[in-house]
Amino acid sequence: MATKQLATWACSLEFSSVPRAVVDAAVRSFQNSLGCIVGGSTHPTVQQAIEALKPTFGDAKHTIFGQSTKNASALLTDASNAALINGIASHVHDFDDTHLHTVIHPAGAVVVALLACSESEKARGRSVSGKDFITALVAGIEIGLRVGNAVSPNHYSEGWHITGTVSPIAVAAALSNLLHLQPDKATNALGIASTQPVGIRVHFGTDTKAFHAGRAAQNGMLAAQLAQGGFTAASDALEGRRGWVEVLGNNSNSLDEQLEQLATFSKQDQSNLNRERWEIEKNTFKPFPCGIVIHPTIDACIQLHNTHNLSDRTNIERIKTIHLKVHPLVFDLTGKKTPKNGLEAKFSVYHGAAIGLVLGSATPAEYEDHIVNDPHVLNIRGKVVAEVDERMQSDEAVVKLTMSEGSEIEKPVQHAVGSLAHPMTNEQLEAKFLKQVAPVIGQSQAEGLDRLAWKILELEDISVITEAGK
Amino acid sequence: MATKQLATWACSLEFSSVPRAVVDAAVRSFQNSLGCIVGGSTHPTVQQAIEALKPTFGDAKHTIFGQSTKNASALLTDASNAALINGIASHVHDFDDTHLHTVIHPAGAVVVALLACSESEKARGRSVSGKDFITALVAGIEIGLRVGNAVSPNHYSEGWHITGTVSPIAVAAALSNLLHLQPDKATNALGIASTQPVGIRVHFGTDTKAFHAGRAAQNGMLAAQLAQGGFTAASDALEGRRGWVEVLGNNSNSLDEQLEQLATFSKQDQSNLNRERWEIEKNTFKPFPCGIVIHPTIDACIQLHNTHNLSDRTNIERIKTIHLKVHPLVFDLTGKKTPKNGLEAKFSVYHGAAIGLVLGSATPAEYEDHIVNDPHVLNIRGKVVAEVDERMQSDEAVVKLTMSEGSEIEKPVQHAVGSLAHPMTNEQLEAKFLKQVAPVIGQSQAEGLDRLAWKILELEDISVITEAGK
Repeated sequence: MATKQLATWACSLEFSSVPRAVVDAAVRSFQNSLGCIVGGSTHPTVQQAIEALKPTFGDAKHTIFGQSTKNASALLTDASNAALINGIASHVHDFDDTHLHTVIHPAGAVVVALLACSESEKARGRSVSGKDFITALVAGIEIGLRVGNAVSPNHYSEGWHITGTVSPIAVAAALSNLLHLQPDKATNALGIASTQPVGIRVHFGTDTKAFHAGRAAQNGMLAAQLAQGGFTAASDALEGRRGWVEVLGNNSNSLDEQLEQLATFSKQDQSNLNRERWEIEKNTFKPFPCGIVIHPTIDACIQLHNTHNLSDRTNIERIKTIHLKVHPLVFDLTGKKTPKNGLEAKFSVYHGAAIGLVLGSATPAEYEDHIVNDPHVLNIRGKVVAEVDERMQSDEAVVKLTMSEGSEIEKPVQHAVGSLAHPMTNEQLEAKFLKQVAPVIGQSQAEGLDRLAWKILELEDISVITEAGK
Repeated sequence: MATKQLATWACSLEFSSVPRAVVDAAVRSFQNSLGCIVGGSTHPTVQQAIEALKPTFGDAKHTIFGQSTKNASALLTDASNAALINGIASHVHDFDDTHLHTVIHPAGAVVVALLACSESEKARGRSVSGKDFITALVAGIEIGLRVGNAVSPNHYSEGWHITGTVSPIAVAAALSNLLHLQPDKATNALGIASTQPVGIRVHFGTDTKAFHAGRAAQNGMLAAQLAQGGFTAASDALEGRRGWVEVLGNNSNSLDEQLEQLATFSKQDQSNLNRERWEIEKNTFKPFPCGIVIHPTIDACIQLHNTHNLSDRTNIERIKTIHLKVHPLVFDLTGKKTPKNGLEAKFSVYHGAAIGLVLGSATPAEYEDHIVNDPHVLNIRGKVVAEVDERMQSDEAVVKLTMSEGSEIEKPVQHAVGSLAHPMTNEQLEAKFLKQVAPVIGQSQAEGLDRLAWKILELEDISVITEAGK
């Protein structure tokens, strides 16, 4: 019954039954994701996808974000290609959100699918309001994270890029809500999505990693579209024999616990709901565009840069060795010692430490290829030695500098900025947004888009956002 | 190196180095697949997909087969939707080909992708010849089957619909050949395809099963298109850590043995090649539109129908019980006792036995919903008892009828018609083709299309086939 129950919950969720704290979490997820989509839109990976796919663009009513400057006019395509390309952009800097327990980047695929689908609805004469949009976003993300919980951690550790495997299901759930599918059709939508998982981890460090988010969005959209048209799938697609959890779950938990919590949500009155914690509330936002387990190291290194004036060459050249104590996953996920370009550097704790110390900053600019190959950065990177400390939490690290004259400087970080215990504030999210978006569409347009994102609940028609993000 | 070697082999295969017997096998695979595509095109599953997707059809230069009669004029769409819909049609009757060792239906996805891609090439001014087409088909099918061999049987038995998981890679290999991609780009194409497996077996018996073949075709096409445009993927996508074989293979064999054989192929001269057996030569064609493990049972039942005049009601009503001895996989794959419609009946050895005995025939007509629910068929189906015999081969079965007066009639089948040991002849394939295609596009057009399929090697431009199949 799990698939049916999840589908029924998703397609019938209403704005009025979503607690305020959950709505706020969704708005933050949306704002952060929109910044990543526009911010990523000029990345070579995205431009390459646009060039490769342009000859097959269909019905040009859907926005590819951030292309007005580059293309003199807005770039429009069909809904599916818009979702693919915006989805790639959302993930390409590894700057998007993270649900820490599952390592899912939950918002990107759902947001781009909802944006594309809203433009389709608009073309058919129906305006999607900000509240409609956020309700569907909550439905999609919540379902995705719960399905992810059911197979974590084995699914990811055995090699699946969980963002790509779960997101088709999340997108199908979100669209089932937005399109008001009946429970049986929503069940089919989740089923058709479940049979299209995207993403094996061998592709990390190549263009294909970001592709996973975009393709997942397309798969969920196709699932919803076919289901809406009456296409059938197994009604026990997730929990059934040879279903999603059994085949992709690698002997993980069942869906039952996740379902029980959802059932509680739907039954409780508003006051009780506020005391519960929804999965979407556990979404976190990255201050640095790279694998999240590197964040405590970067946080410590930037603090060291600032407090010890390491922009001064004479100071930084006194460093003899840089010793990192890190969580075990750091090696597993981000152990690349000699990354050759920006995409690979996102999986290098060594590069992260080096830019933190040398440049005092870790934004997309510090992950451009020329920085990854800069002699000064390489010199410092070569002095980094990392060691696993099994007792550490994933948001924790200790960086110790040994100076040429023998003195030591130690900087522990207990909860990295952006972690659950030390979340980014709305002001920090705004600064992150503008830093990404202004170089693409200009400062004043970026500020306008940011304002629209924060006040999405007031919008009668979210097409003002796609307009402003072109 | 496996991914690179497979990709290099696929993109550089030339017609002149393909042995005659392999070419013949490919032409038979093509002819059978084309018949299934046109034959399946009127199925409700296909019509539902067309209706659902029509609003998003793009650039209308690509043929959806078999729609002229239904739509008064030919139905055209973009390349990707054409491949999806023709791919669904190719598999919807479960009447397509089978590589017995892996249970892959190898041709469908590759054929529909090559047809769509040939129409794209045509629109750009390049005619694809029959020899180009067959060379690419061989490259695709051979790679798909070898990748499938590397993970069989665990991959399928653990719940993957191997046709959908392997075909994106096969399609990417075929298109790498057709589009003359360089080895590095062909490697990326296989990589991008590898990250998009389609199909979990929970969906068998629903519209989504046939969807797997169509979506796999689209995934391989997208992979080739992105790779052609310079998009990167892991160069060890198949064999690498957290690559395709490790993540989806369920502790199966490695790719090494498959690679060694391919290497032998490329080095040998023509005379030696003829002595080797390529995987595509092991492709078989179904006389009956259902799970292949049921075929020996149906074969025996049709023989009993004919030799004992069971179309006579008084004769068939004398049957008290029908006892089947079958291969163990029959229960696992086709054990549905009470199928409710045609799609489910394809996985019912009980329905297969009943139609063989009652109607003496098993074509798509005997899998229509009204036959599956016909009282006379149900009455006989209720008398079927099946028993596994561990010693049996998968193309073997024994059917024993016990008559009301106590006598017994036993019919053993050692190698079912259509099996490797008892393959369908070209004449039987022709009859199968016409039986499927004539009801859709008319007898004389069907005969013309069949002739074109057999003489594909003579065609300077395969667009005559898409023209004739509209």
